[in-house]
Amino acid sequence: MPRQMNLGAFLMATGHHVAAWRHPDVPADPLDFATYKRTAQIAEAACFDALFVADSVAAPSDPLASHSARSVYFEPLTLLSALSAVTERIGLIATATTSYNEPYHVARKFASLDHLSAGRAGWNLVTSDAAAEAGNFGRQTHIPHAERYARAREFQQVVQGLWDSWADDAFVRDKASGLFHHPQAVRTLDHVGEHFRVKGPLNVARSPQGRPVLVQAGSSETGRELAAQSAEVVFTAQPSLARAQAFYADLKGRLARHGRDEQSLKIMPGVFVVVGQSQAQAEDKYEQFQALVDPRVGVGLLGRMLGNFDLSGYPLDSPLPALPPTEDGQRSRQQLLTELAGNEQLTLAQLGRRIAGGRGHYSLVGTPTQIADELQAWFEGGGADGFNVLVPHLPLGLEDFAVQVVPELQRRGLFRRQYQGHTLREHLGLQRPANPYFAERGQP
Amino acid sequence: MPRQMNLGAFLMATGHHVAAWRHPDVPADPLDFATYKRTAQIAEAACFDALFVADSVAAPSDPLASHSARSVYFEPLTLLSALSAVTERIGLIATATTSYNEPYHVARKFASLDHLSAGRAGWNLVTSDAAAEAGNFGRQTHIPHAERYARAREFQQVVQGLWDSWADDAFVRDKASGLFHHPQAVRTLDHVGEHFRVKGPLNVARSPQGRPVLVQAGSSETGRELAAQSAEVVFTAQPSLARAQAFYADLKGRLARHGRDEQSLKIMPGVFVVVGQSQAQAEDKYEQFQALVDPRVGVGLLGRMLGNFDLSGYPLDSPLPALPPTEDGQRSRQQLLTELAGNEQLTLAQLGRRIAGGRGHYSLVGTPTQIADELQAWFEGGGADGFNVLVPHLPLGLEDFAVQVVPELQRRGLFRRQYQGHTLREHLGLQRPANPYFAERGQP
Repeated sequence: MPRQMNLGAFLMATGHHVAAWRHPDVPADPLDFATYKRTAQIAEAACFDALFVADSVAAPSDPLASHSARSVYFEPLTLLSALSAVTERIGLIATATTSYNEPYHVARKFASLDHLSAGRAGWNLVTSDAAAEAGNFGRQTHIPHAERYARAREFQQVVQGLWDSWADDAFVRDKASGLFHHPQAVRTLDHVGEHFRVKGPLNVARSPQGRPVLVQAGSSETGRELAAQSAEVVFTAQPSLARAQAFYADLKGRLARHGRDEQSLKIMPGVFVVVGQSQAQAEDKYEQFQALVDPRVGVGLLGRMLGNFDLSGYPLDSPLPALPPTEDGQRSRQQLLTELAGNEQLTLAQLGRRIAGGRGHYSLVGTPTQIADELQAWFEGGGADGFNVLVPHLPLGLEDFAVQVVPELQRRGLFRRQYQGHTLREHLGLQRPANPYFAERGQP
Repeated sequence: MPRQMNLGAFLMATGHHVAAWRHPDVPADPLDFATYKRTAQIAEAACFDALFVADSVAAPSDPLASHSARSVYFEPLTLLSALSAVTERIGLIATATTSYNEPYHVARKFASLDHLSAGRAGWNLVTSDAAAEAGNFGRQTHIPHAERYARAREFQQVVQGLWDSWADDAFVRDKASGLFHHPQAVRTLDHVGEHFRVKGPLNVARSPQGRPVLVQAGSSETGRELAAQSAEVVFTAQPSLARAQAFYADLKGRLARHGRDEQSLKIMPGVFVVVGQSQAQAEDKYEQFQALVDPRVGVGLLGRMLGNFDLSGYPLDSPLPALPPTEDGQRSRQQLLTELAGNEQLTLAQLGRRIAGGRGHYSLVGTPTQIADELQAWFEGGGADGFNVLVPHLPLGLEDFAVQVVPELQRRGLFRRQYQGHTLREHLGLQRPANPYFAERGQP
């Protein structure tokens, strides 16, 4: 079989377009589980590798928040746990920050989800996303970038150690003798580090995947190094094939130094997709959403994407003002958008409108054939192992992709027609990690 | 309609009897979601008010842990979220400790579960349960009892404040004007206290129940005062009707001082139930489990119940040694068991065997009529508003109760034949709390 593309369905309540909720076809309640369930089932019927859920541990506070559907949403682990019970095969990737969590809780929740879903859990490790988060966890100011990453690295090591608390074959459950688990098949972690002291063991057995799949999205130098060291999937925003190729080559090139081969890390750029039967129909569909963008709301979103700057004081037709580098974990996105504004001489309102759908991700508005051509070019041209698919509105935008684009990818032999494996690791072609602490016991 | 009894189904992987997993009829995998799903559906078919899940944030470390099925289990919020998707009406009560959590996370997860389940979430607030937990969260020693409760009180206030971040009618979702929520219908909490600084608002809308139901289990003086101040359901272990009556009268008597009426707090003692068609058959069923108790395992469980003491050094036929008062949040249970041992002159092995099923909860081993008689006597005699039902093995022990005892209670007019309401509050007869910060806006 030729190399297969991986596809993630990036969930966001009403869809990724900031004005999606205003469209007559879109259920506008971000806390309606039925809509998520329908979306998940559409993605699973199309054999997507995974559902992906972003997160923030604060409500947006910009003045235009009242005009977007982004203020309230489900907590990702509870949402994906619920979806695990109404799906069978699709992976479930939730975001959780290392900046305002405890590693024991995070290790436990993802291991629990991996058991609930029979091996479909993934953890998108992020450092943090909004200065507002600090205030909800007893801090006056945000943790600086470098310290955030140092904490993230240690956090990840503790989580991984906790996931390896138990041998895979620890639980004999011998009813006759009364021995439930081998006493030697569990270990305390006894971690003592710069940021954490964690004794262990975890109170969850080693999970079906050994460890839930580790996903990262940081694109800064520090973020890339952390990803090269430990990530198994990287999501990223890349504005062109050339940039995607450079990122792909750079990140894959770092793996050998960490003793890893290129297959152990999958790179999946985000791609914003609007599908139509003709180019004109696709553009018309896209314009329906664009026409609903209140320019002030577009600029509000822009401010958030740049790293939580309030741009409401600037005239809508002014150019993007010079901004200091953000400390908010959005530095790569800030750079990308600043370049875009400069290259195309966009006003604030124009830039806000431009990112209203894909938020800086590569955008494809066209026919199934055109979209498949582009995805294939990236996939075969060293730009991507797969894609995290953003659609303007949910669930219908995903249905468009599932019903029109996926079959075209399947005809070309680029994407599965049915699931071959049962776990997220199997979908992604990632090995199940052995437990280094119990190697001599063997794996089940 | 006469006053109705409330019933909780206390879930525990293989059942409450410490040797349940050894029984041939019992699925012995504590991480099998299918068993939980079946159990939940049995409870819902019998119209139980709620499922209840206990918790600890540490694996047991006593030497006999290898001989019990209690070392690994699902994290409660992920488990109940998954169960929310495969049930329709039954309440979902999860335990979460205030000692090693952040209020923002706890508020958020329970609000999210309340939305996922359309109003069925409950939070069992505990202070903590095992010294081993401290070591997983950067502490060398456990937080002392008094400080734990002070923290718990402030924690609960912060969570409640966060649950009230949004007016019930905040979200207008006006597609025409583009207004998603009223800008004035959200408030920051700006809490600054002894233990926490939390800005808010919560990034989850006010939930279907207004606030998830608040459950507590502490029976100490401090625990009772906290319950009288804020709890809506209290679980408790009471060894006799007389003691249950005293507890009930004491706790209900405290409510007026906090401006609350007696209906605003439901008291639900735990009751361990083994059902048979005849007394002899019930006793025989119970003995099948008792015969599977390894005495060392019984004593290991006893040590945990007394507050995490290692009793493995004492001879099995010695009396219970004098122990210092535990600091482990089990002080009431310790007192209860110490009295039991003294009154009946039990050896360690005998006491361990005695608690192997109900762990100090009131035990009923008999016919449906006998069991219904006792429950009715407690319910009508001022000892209980309902019961948290513990069964030796799951799912079959609960099925016994559902199929044999519930119909007897229904015949007597003591328990619903079908759900009247949709939310946990409605099942329990608890009012939906108004949002004090947005009273002038009215409720939906």
